Amino acid sequence: MEILIVAVTLACSVLALLFAVILACRVMKFSEGTDLMKRISLSIRRGANAFLKRQYKIVLIFFGVMFALLGVMAIFGLLNPFTPFAFISGGFFSALSGFIGMKIATASNARTANACREGLNKGLRVAFSAGSVMGFTVVGLGLLDISLWFLILKFGFGLQPSEITGAMLTFGMGASSMALFARVGGGIFTKAADVGADLVGKVEAGIPEDDPRNPAVIADNVGDNVGDVAGMGADLYESYVGSVVSACALGVTAFANIRAMALPMLLAAVGVICSILGTFLVRTKEGATQKQLLRALSRGTNFSAILIALAAFPLVYFVLGKEYWPVYFAVLAGLIAGVLIGQATEYFTSDSYKPTRNLAATSETGTATIVIGGLSVGMLSTLLPVIIVSVCVLVAYFVSGGATSVSRGLYGIALAAVGMLSTLGITLATDAYGPVADNAGGIAEMAGLEKEVRERTDALDSLGNTTAATGKGFAIGSAALTALALMASYIDKVKTIDGGAESISNLSITNPTVLVGLFIGACLPFVFAALTMNSVGRAAQSVVKEVRRQFKEITGLMEGKAEADYASCVDLCTKASLREMILPTVVAIAVPVIVGIILGCTGVVGMLAGATASGFLMAVFMSNSGGAWDNAKKYIESGTHGGKGSDCHKSAVVGDTVGDPFKDTAGPSINILIKLLSMVSIVFAAIVVNFSIL
Amino acid sequence: MEILIVAVTLACSVLALLFAVILACRVMKFSEGTDLMKRISLSIRRGANAFLKRQYKIVLIFFGVMFALLGVMAIFGLLNPFTPFAFISGGFFSALSGFIGMKIATASNARTANACREGLNKGLRVAFSAGSVMGFTVVGLGLLDISLWFLILKFGFGLQPSEITGAMLTFGMGASSMALFARVGGGIFTKAADVGADLVGKVEAGIPEDDPRNPAVIADNVGDNVGDVAGMGADLYESYVGSVVSACALGVTAFANIRAMALPMLLAAVGVICSILGTFLVRTKEGATQKQLLRALSRGTNFSAILIALAAFPLVYFVLGKEYWPVYFAVLAGLIAGVLIGQATEYFTSDSYKPTRNLAATSETGTATIVIGGLSVGMLSTLLPVIIVSVCVLVAYFVSGGATSVSRGLYGIALAAVGMLSTLGITLATDAYGPVADNAGGIAEMAGLEKEVRERTDALDSLGNTTAATGKGFAIGSAALTALALMASYIDKVKTIDGGAESISNLSITNPTVLVGLFIGACLPFVFAALTMNSVGRAAQSVVKEVRRQFKEITGLMEGKAEADYASCVDLCTKASLREMILPTVVAIAVPVIVGIILGCTGVVGMLAGATASGFLMAVFMSNSGGAWDNAKKYIESGTHGGKGSDCHKSAVVGDTVGDPFKDTAGPSINILIKLLSMVSIVFAAIVVNFSIL
Repeated sequence: MEILIVAVTLACSVLALLFAVILACRVMKFSEGTDLMKRISLSIRRGANAFLKRQYKIVLIFFGVMFALLGVMAIFGLLNPFTPFAFISGGFFSALSGFIGMKIATASNARTANACREGLNKGLRVAFSAGSVMGFTVVGLGLLDISLWFLILKFGFGLQPSEITGAMLTFGMGASSMALFARVGGGIFTKAADVGADLVGKVEAGIPEDDPRNPAVIADNVGDNVGDVAGMGADLYESYVGSVVSACALGVTAFANIRAMALPMLLAAVGVICSILGTFLVRTKEGATQKQLLRALSRGTNFSAILIALAAFPLVYFVLGKEYWPVYFAVLAGLIAGVLIGQATEYFTSDSYKPTRNLAATSETGTATIVIGGLSVGMLSTLLPVIIVSVCVLVAYFVSGGATSVSRGLYGIALAAVGMLSTLGITLATDAYGPVADNAGGIAEMAGLEKEVRERTDALDSLGNTTAATGKGFAIGSAALTALALMASYIDKVKTIDGGAESISNLSITNPTVLVGLFIGACLPFVFAALTMNSVGRAAQSVVKEVRRQFKEITGLMEGKAEADYASCVDLCTKASLREMILPTVVAIAVPVIVGIILGCTGVVGMLAGATASGFLMAVFMSNSGGAWDNAKKYIESGTHGGKGSDCHKSAVVGDTVGDPFKDTAGPSINILIKLLSMVSIVFAAIVVNFSIL
Repeated sequence: MEILIVAVTLACSVLALLFAVILACRVMKFSEGTDLMKRISLSIRRGANAFLKRQYKIVLIFFGVMFALLGVMAIFGLLNPFTPFAFISGGFFSALSGFIGMKIATASNARTANACREGLNKGLRVAFSAGSVMGFTVVGLGLLDISLWFLILKFGFGLQPSEITGAMLTFGMGASSMALFARVGGGIFTKAADVGADLVGKVEAGIPEDDPRNPAVIADNVGDNVGDVAGMGADLYESYVGSVVSACALGVTAFANIRAMALPMLLAAVGVICSILGTFLVRTKEGATQKQLLRALSRGTNFSAILIALAAFPLVYFVLGKEYWPVYFAVLAGLIAGVLIGQATEYFTSDSYKPTRNLAATSETGTATIVIGGLSVGMLSTLLPVIIVSVCVLVAYFVSGGATSVSRGLYGIALAAVGMLSTLGITLATDAYGPVADNAGGIAEMAGLEKEVRERTDALDSLGNTTAATGKGFAIGSAALTALALMASYIDKVKTIDGGAESISNLSITNPTVLVGLFIGACLPFVFAALTMNSVGRAAQSVVKEVRRQFKEITGLMEGKAEADYASCVDLCTKASLREMILPTVVAIAVPVIVGIILGCTGVVGMLAGATASGFLMAVFMSNSGGAWDNAKKYIESGTHGGKGSDCHKSAVVGDTVGDPFKDTAGPSINILIKLLSMVSIVFAAIVVNFSIL
């Protein structure tokens, strides 16, 4: 049995990585276009490389310190000795996912722009292939890490399943820490550059977006790659691995056999095959409308989802055992919930529907009303996802036998998260293709390509916004489910520690430590969002000043006779975002330990529940407010309410700028935060049990 | 013993009401000033009266339906027969508190303006007396309702303490329902009028605030009275009564004697005396600076707080019994927590401190950055109140013996809420005086009074903003504590129902119904905030259109030759706000029942915990963001960052407008929401126990 699990998982992981390599080679065969395009693409590539290099240096210090800390704990017997190494490996693979994603994205932006000169379909193929490289790299590396550790710990050291999952949860923490650095750092970079470029370039100097005279324009495009690509890669690597690992851990507790641990790994492995098959359906004919483009993408993701829905049944039936076949509905519930949350997200943020159209209309009465309107669209949009997740949790819990065994019910919730993320290979591809198309548009503009090229890249880009919304639905939904599963894993973990079972016996919500933990946990996403938004603000202000300085000091810049100093803006953004990413991450890692020391294990559980609930809401609220403002602006730009340049448009631009840090910095970071809190709690559980005050 | 309790409580209630009458007579002796001032004041009075009359008509229908519903339940034995009457009485007294507050406020606005013509001290005395009338009316009526019901049920029908507190909780629900109508309806009115007047008058037509040519100017002033005064009166009546009643109920469970029930009533009663004594210290010398004015007010509130802190010890010692003296620290913790939250609020929202000053500076880079900045100030400001409330909860729980008896610990939390609100008479006076001063300023402007009069009213008004922040701290902090106490009362209540104890046995946070309830509860404040903000938006847009129409159609209006049609704006606001207040209130009442029917009692407890945690955070966030924007704007108006009319100022005005529905509609309504949810759950507990699905 064990051999089979490792063999299948490892094979699918290699398959995913091979597929990524083939796609990458295909992308690289395309031409980068004119010399100017090559030069622009090179600047973006250089900027992104420089950022990541410096980010990794800082992250390395962090990982070194944590490694030492975990090592000391392991020496004192508080952790198993593999933990520090597992931690490092999680961080490494997460960083690698982001790095490869960034490499392929920066290599394919000019190629996409050039392909668009020949036609829309070709452009779509290049951009989508690039997105797929990232998608399959993430799932391939995720499965590789999981199966390698399984191989080493099981066959190399002969550990028990519960010890194996313990080490696996630690590499989840490594991955989450790295993901948080990448998301927060990248998120601050991209929005600081964006806001800086927009405020001075578009608003003050009155030059169009992506105009080469704007000194922050390269930084803006670099930002798309380090934030939306490298950040997202690390983020989803962490989600994927986290959901599988927590399901494995709960499976071991619930069924005390290797079969329950094998199921999530095999589900993920089979999901890879379904995703690969799905990608072959993504193609469109020349002159396709936006609707047809969207249909081409949906065809791929839907096909993959149907395949895995079919394949999951025999998997559950044969792997877990025929008497447990209803567990299948937990997987299915997760899969369906992911799709539904995506659709709810689309309803609230796409300009094809009422909420965003009404939001665009509020710009008629000024900036304040569109800001208020966007905030309330986001707040209102939390309702449906909450109901969907709630139903999914209840279904997953009860079909898995939660009525008689709590741990089986919780295992069901974890499996729902795995089900939701099983086709990540292709959903991430449709998501990651967006920034590539966006960059391609920027290059088309800067290189002065023909108008129809820009139109084609715009069509691709605007489609990317819709698929990004769906992708976000998956990311947020799976984060909530995974966080709940991790909370359950935490409780399991504490129970295995001497004196732990007693310390966590009263988890009643009327227990004041649980209640106080709940309040503190619920507060964390608010504080975290504030910290990251402030960081964006501070970083953006330094960019604004630099851009203003260049416009003033470089003579002939506005007339296009002199070149802007792009590198200095990239450098500024890099420095600022790296400085700013440290505090939020330290907060996320320190708080669970501090809360645990003061309030004990019950306080930690309360904190995790509070952070998950309020984090889920804040993430949905902020992402959807941001998405709605963005699309309301685009809707006005399409010619409604006076179109581009009108007062309504100006108001909408303010809304969009407010939404930027909402949807691209704070919102997605909160997804990682809620899981990182649980992972940290799990790793440091022994310390809390032994040294807590209350 | 019982006789003594009723005698003291009733006496203090009468004392408070008498004191209010004396102050009211003193206020009425002042002159209303010139004929024009009288006319303006009359218009405001008429508008406010018309609004309340129509609001009460709608509310009457609601109360009629609820009375019938509760009556039917009582007939079927699901409720005790006094419940429907208690419900009505709570609503009636809550409405009466708001009504009297509005009456005195509209009677004293012109008087304050006129008194300011003679001097600042006289103006302060009139405005503060008016505020005190409202403060003491609220506490007087609150104690009256509580002691009358105690009298009737104990001596008239010979009921047991637990039956008495059961009926009392129902009048809490009546009060909360009324408060929600008043806060939401009034809040929508005031902000719709305010936004409408500002957007068209100040921004589009470029005329100053409170200019008589603005057709919405009377509606704006009416709004201050129906929202900030009548709404606040009903709101704090509900907080006050809710905290006392829930403490009484928990006391009966925890100690099974009348002494524990008497303590909160007596604390409140003695608090009245302390508050009255405090008011005598509020006076200032002529030509006082703003600091001196603030000191005059603080002297009064601080003195009252110290008095009650001293008086509470013998009360606890003798009423509860000497072995329980540490319970005193629960009361003290509440009192201190209230003050600290107020100070934290002031730090984040006053322009004397860094957060608001930095916020003002963000206007330099445009509207988007000041909006982002305000949002993050609000989010960050949640941290301190959460820590303060958490410490308060833990202290109150453990000093009251929570380690050995959960119900005694919960009683301690309820007593902390009573402690926090014990000096409500005077804290509400300092809070309610703000809108009176604001109105006085409006009248001074409209009546064309001398510049120094306007300066004096401005000084009073600006002070009102600071005291309002402190008042909000008390309102929010006590709401959280009271909601927790009510949650505990709910659990007690369920246990008394046949089959209830079993249905609520598993309150562990890992129980999926608790967890799902938590998610749904946490979502409610977001949805509620969205609904109320949308309502403000819709109502404001209709005002904007009407004001634009009048500017266009009434010839000579801009030149001051023709009079605007004020009444039509007032009418519009009235209709719109009354229409809009229904949905949020129905949601608040229906959701606990629906959640209960589907998820059972454990789901309801989860929902209450989630709503309390996220509601507390949202209320703090929204109030403080709004306060910070408001004061950042005022800080710029005081001459920084270019002063009035500069681009920075324009950006700050947008921030302030976004903050208006935040701090005056959505934020305060959420305070009521979280308590109303618990009260409704308690009243309908029997239905949920008998008919729930899960």
